[in-house]
Amino acid sequence: MPTDTGRPPDMSLAGAVTIDDVRAAAALIDGVAHRTPVMTSRHLDRLAGCEILLKCENFQRTGSFKFRGAYCAIHGIRARGKSRGALAYSSGNHAQGVALAASMLGVPAVILMPVNAPRLKLEAAKNYLSKAPEGSEVVTFDPQTQIREELARQMAEERKLELLPGYDNLDVIAGQGTVALELHEEAGPLDRLYVCCGGGGLISGCSIATRAVADACEVIGVEPELGNDAVMSYKTGRLHTVRNPATIADGARTPYLGRYTFPMVKAFVQSMMSVQDEELVEAMRLCMERMKIVVEPTGVLALAGLLKDARESPESVEGKRIGVTISGGNIDLAKIGDYFRG
Amino acid sequence: MPTDTGRPPDMSLAGAVTIDDVRAAAALIDGVAHRTPVMTSRHLDRLAGCEILLKCENFQRTGSFKFRGAYCAIHGIRARGKSRGALAYSSGNHAQGVALAASMLGVPAVILMPVNAPRLKLEAAKNYLSKAPEGSEVVTFDPQTQIREELARQMAEERKLELLPGYDNLDVIAGQGTVALELHEEAGPLDRLYVCCGGGGLISGCSIATRAVADACEVIGVEPELGNDAVMSYKTGRLHTVRNPATIADGARTPYLGRYTFPMVKAFVQSMMSVQDEELVEAMRLCMERMKIVVEPTGVLALAGLLKDARESPESVEGKRIGVTISGGNIDLAKIGDYFRG
Repeated sequence: MPTDTGRPPDMSLAGAVTIDDVRAAAALIDGVAHRTPVMTSRHLDRLAGCEILLKCENFQRTGSFKFRGAYCAIHGIRARGKSRGALAYSSGNHAQGVALAASMLGVPAVILMPVNAPRLKLEAAKNYLSKAPEGSEVVTFDPQTQIREELARQMAEERKLELLPGYDNLDVIAGQGTVALELHEEAGPLDRLYVCCGGGGLISGCSIATRAVADACEVIGVEPELGNDAVMSYKTGRLHTVRNPATIADGARTPYLGRYTFPMVKAFVQSMMSVQDEELVEAMRLCMERMKIVVEPTGVLALAGLLKDARESPESVEGKRIGVTISGGNIDLAKIGDYFRG
Repeated sequence: MPTDTGRPPDMSLAGAVTIDDVRAAAALIDGVAHRTPVMTSRHLDRLAGCEILLKCENFQRTGSFKFRGAYCAIHGIRARGKSRGALAYSSGNHAQGVALAASMLGVPAVILMPVNAPRLKLEAAKNYLSKAPEGSEVVTFDPQTQIREELARQMAEERKLELLPGYDNLDVIAGQGTVALELHEEAGPLDRLYVCCGGGGLISGCSIATRAVADACEVIGVEPELGNDAVMSYKTGRLHTVRNPATIADGARTPYLGRYTFPMVKAFVQSMMSVQDEELVEAMRLCMERMKIVVEPTGVLALAGLLKDARESPESVEGKRIGVTISGGNIDLAKIGDYFRG
């Protein structure tokens, strides 16, 4: 909301999600979401000069971590029983997460998606929703002329649905925190954890979990340079907004941190940085060529951040044990070549 | 060798590799090669109507199963001490396997590669060889005008190197057999195992291992339709030759089964089938879009074969537990889109 630009974070909200909430989310998604693998790569370790443990949420159901938070939030909507269902807006992965969770939990969901969202993401959301209760549908809008939050509020009111934002929601944040909870459990002591940052849901949940179970581990947020609103907000202590940035990281085109995620990021994250789109392409190349895993541009933000630090300040990572979130792998196969040509 | 076309298999050679050889190979590569993951996919299971266990050799070192056999063979050359090193010819993955094994074991290696081999494979082989002993190099040739076997024999003699063919070699066959050995150990009882077939090294080793440790499991070989020499040889009992087939499965452009692999395939494989290139593309799409793993066209031959059987004779696979080798993932990223456009 443009009118909010410039406001400081309401730090009283930083504690609105606790480690207990993250643990409850972990219990809720146990056996429902995948416990994704933690992968390693000799080549990456050599390249960065440290031991890297990649938490691979591209292998999560629906192809990204978003399913975790969406499942928790849809479960909450059903438990409260105050609305007919959920109304979500999303550039893609949250949409798929909501759609699958809605079909699994039998809760109607309407999903607002930009018309220019990747074809794969649009189709997958429609496909999952086809098994959700009546009243469920995907509605597209033009992000150049329509503001999705306004559209969403209007439709939610008309259809008696509860708004389910992609990141600024307590159930969502608790659900995303399970990514770090699982990683710390499996990987053991980490010196650092790099997490991608769009609207801040994943990094809020992950930093809350990290502060509770691995307090010696620094959390570093990574954003695309072209949409560096969170970096600016973090550094200045005032909310910055960047609308529709032209970054290839389509999952991080979010305009600003949320009412909850801004204070959480401010309170629990040790550092925020940004990377260029070309650095994302290089990180994608390493993942696909060397590790043989399919990743989307947004999915490698954290890895690109680590590689940038390894290049620009090698002493800051050398010999350390470093966790990295690979957040998603939903990419149009027909377009993969475009990133790597020339 | 064209002069061999029409010969029947020498069945006395079918037992030239035994399960003991495969077990010895397993001990040799223990801690050197990756014990690759066995992956599953809800979506694939639903699509095929059976339980599918994918042995993912795209995650093997050098990106394909070829490293296993190459390591065993280079180790054998060093142990015998009769030559200066190895001379290998390969369309790509065997080259990388030999190059890495040579550098690890400190054995000189010369590798003959076609000039039209994928860029990624050429570069990777050169890169690995840069750490191998002096005298190691990649030599390219034109497969349209030169016969690689003749070139290879000539160079081997001149440079006092031992020929290390990609499949018709007992150490190589034993090494490739460890793929099935690991799969049977991890997956438990399987009804069927689909294995890709080029020159027959992988399927020979895998069928030898399967007959010994999981005799109830049928082994089915899958070849590209455009290069179906092994299918024809298997069915007629006479060696067939197909030179330079135009299939996208560049790792299966081998012209014929070998002196050893022909009798082994004939003795230990229950059925041979072929698939169209479009079926390979569809299997690649499923792997990359749904499973988020990078695969090359040759790498999904076995999966494409299973999916074809599931489509054309569903009763033959329904409700069964089926193993599938994913043999490699070395693909030019810039060209991935070409397979999926239009």
